[in-house]
Amino acid sequence: MNAPGPAFPATSPDQVFDWLDTEAAKRGEAGLTRRLHPRGPSSDELDLAGDDYLGLARDKRVAGAAAAAALRWGAGSTGSRLGTGSTEVHAELEHALARFCGVQSALVFSSGFTANLGAVTALSGAESAIVTDKYIHASLVEGCRLARADLAAVAHGDAAAITHALATRRKQRALVVTDSVFSVDGDLAPLDELSAACRSHGAALLVDDTHGFGVLGEGGRGAVHEAGLSGAPDVVTTITLATALGTQGGAVLGPRRVIKHLVDTARSFMFDAGLAPGSAAAALAALGVLREEPELPGKVLTAAQGLAAGLTAAGLRVSAPSSAVVSLPAPSAEAALTWAASCSEHGIRVGCFRPPSVPDGASRLRLTAHAALSESDVERAVKVIAEVAPRGARS
Amino acid sequence: MNAPGPAFPATSPDQVFDWLDTEAAKRGEAGLTRRLHPRGPSSDELDLAGDDYLGLARDKRVAGAAAAAALRWGAGSTGSRLGTGSTEVHAELEHALARFCGVQSALVFSSGFTANLGAVTALSGAESAIVTDKYIHASLVEGCRLARADLAAVAHGDAAAITHALATRRKQRALVVTDSVFSVDGDLAPLDELSAACRSHGAALLVDDTHGFGVLGEGGRGAVHEAGLSGAPDVVTTITLATALGTQGGAVLGPRRVIKHLVDTARSFMFDAGLAPGSAAAALAALGVLREEPELPGKVLTAAQGLAAGLTAAGLRVSAPSSAVVSLPAPSAEAALTWAASCSEHGIRVGCFRPPSVPDGASRLRLTAHAALSESDVERAVKVIAEVAPRGARS
Ligand SMILES: Cc1ncc(COP(=O)(O)O)c(C=O)c1O
Ligand SMILES: Cc1ncc(COP(=O)(O)O)c(C=O)c1O
Repeated sequence: MNAPGPAFPATSPDQVFDWLDTEAAKRGEAGLTRRLHPRGPSSDELDLAGDDYLGLARDKRVAGAAAAAALRWGAGSTGSRLGTGSTEVHAELEHALARFCGVQSALVFSSGFTANLGAVTALSGAESAIVTDKYIHASLVEGCRLARADLAAVAHGDAAAITHALATRRKQRALVVTDSVFSVDGDLAPLDELSAACRSHGAALLVDDTHGFGVLGEGGRGAVHEAGLSGAPDVVTTITLATALGTQGGAVLGPRRVIKHLVDTARSFMFDAGLAPGSAAAALAALGVLREEPELPGKVLTAAQGLAAGLTAAGLRVSAPSSAVVSLPAPSAEAALTWAASCSEHGIRVGCFRPPSVPDGASRLRLTAHAALSESDVERAVKVIAEVAPRGARS
Repeated sequence: MNAPGPAFPATSPDQVFDWLDTEAAKRGEAGLTRRLHPRGPSSDELDLAGDDYLGLARDKRVAGAAAAAALRWGAGSTGSRLGTGSTEVHAELEHALARFCGVQSALVFSSGFTANLGAVTALSGAESAIVTDKYIHASLVEGCRLARADLAAVAHGDAAAITHALATRRKQRALVVTDSVFSVDGDLAPLDELSAACRSHGAALLVDDTHGFGVLGEGGRGAVHEAGLSGAPDVVTTITLATALGTQGGAVLGPRRVIKHLVDTARSFMFDAGLAPGSAAAALAALGVLREEPELPGKVLTAAQGLAAGLTAAGLRVSAPSSAVVSLPAPSAEAALTWAASCSEHGIRVGCFRPPSVPDGASRLRLTAHAALSESDVERAVKVIAEVAPRGARS
């Protein structure tokens, strides 16, 4: 038996969470306090913050499908997907997603977050190596932490470092994990090179296409499809249903045997209530819109490029937009917050990213383009954002 | 520098996932393969498998609220809760939950799974000890794995072991984590004793009340409320919106400073799209029903006790029901599967739990009682379940 460690005395129940106040004070000093700002159903603000890239959340066909499904199927799925929580709507959505993306099979989760947890953990494990870009999405990071694998997180955007990590790994089984479009800056992963590295080194590739799906690739089929990797036997894609598809939920797309494996082993699939039928039906309807209007995704890119060009011309440092996301570095967390608040006062809602959403010292505004943005919207947004920009944001 | 480890040769892309087939074959031999069975909108089967304890998922007031909100707010929340994904519906639901349960504050997540991940990780960390019952829900287990805390998982239902682990911990900050109603067997945690142990040892208590909320306590306020712990400064409760409230989502309930801390630090809150407005509105409506019909929860317990009494009288080994859940041990995983399939052939849908949902050798049927079950439903169910029971299920 181990010798018992020190005992800690009883404190008053009121004091048990005192440490939270200490931490809150530290965050306050660093400009890292967050507040929720519940919004109304409509707004006069121009939205450059939301991830509803195609404007489908409020589209009558999509919202109408959600409403009809809630009435027909109920407000909830009533159980886990392996219990009573799989409806015909879930099955239909899985078939439609697989067909649209050209993969064998798809599995719907309650969120992109749980889809990522499930895919990463089930496709790795203690007998695996995982190699990632260090800027992958938080949900992928959590998946990697849960996986108990040998983990190497290499410099951002560095395919050579990924290759090196694969070449020097100590476990035969290996999984490379990346975002296709990195969520904060909107830059692209070098999927061609990553796939080649995987194939030279006997590794599988897992791509989170949350910000590529519905925006990039033929008719919005995503960055994985654009890279010619959809349907590949060694590639698995995850998406959320909460960006371009305008609703809630997530999915994993890939070879049939991968999906079967997830059904049997992914804990965030097995031990989680099924997606609400309304959300599943909305995603299915949104996929229908995307099929009927293949020109929608291109409008998002045009708007993003317009925003970036205007902001660059106005003297700001701007990421080159390869997706819907345009990113503007701010000199500090406080400056980012003030900048975002000033934009809002002038009727433009922008995203504000501070640590831990970005590394220390990398606070920024994150703008998202939408298919419905007009040229005059873009002009107005550029004017406001540039006028209220802090000094350090200029190039 | 470390010497590079062995390099692994390229394999064909087709072979990268061959290991999944090997694992699938092993699961097949052990009777642990799962299959999804998508259901239609209505069924002739008597449902003793779903977690919609109060029958609210299909209730017109609840499903109607989901539909109306989808039309008014859109099919999705359009962003993270700290971006555009907080609507007035989310805020209203948070207020209503807090008021109903008698706590200072509540925070809505996209699922109970992500609520548990967020609460456990944000309220512990590398400077903490976590002490748990070893049968806590998988989502709490994942939270504990992510927390990097000193972790002790003690024997099931053993408050003395929890106390001992608290007394011998090596970190001052400590969190005890438990289900109120354990999800598989429906047995209760000794919340009084656990709270006393926490208070003697300066620890906080986190209770997952997923299967207590809406069933136990005054008007369905849950097991934490029933134990007199709602509103305590050292107690935090998590719930799902997918059981008694009949929709999707999760929530954390507790002191205001805990909720503020989660907003600023819980990764599964910050990096996850907001719950669909329809699901939030449905939960709000369900809470209204619960307030108007405080007798509903009692009907669930009556039905569960009727089921257990009947099955015991029929000679089966049955858990004593303290909640909606009635559990029936099966002699093996295959036997559990066959038993459940036979019930289904006779029009009774039951839950079938096999590893990893339960420990090896503990496969079982899990029956859930519902407020709307009539006495004749219960009689019919008992008759069928007993008639098709395998030998080893008898006492
Ligand atoms: C790249 C990326 N992956 C995954 C997620 C998680 O998806 P969800 O919001 O559906 O949980 C998000 C967004 O939140 C994201 O930006
Ligand atoms: C005890 C318990 N906690 C948490 C969860 C997760 O909740 P959700 O299904 O909303 O993710 C479940 C059910 O799935 C559960 O049974």
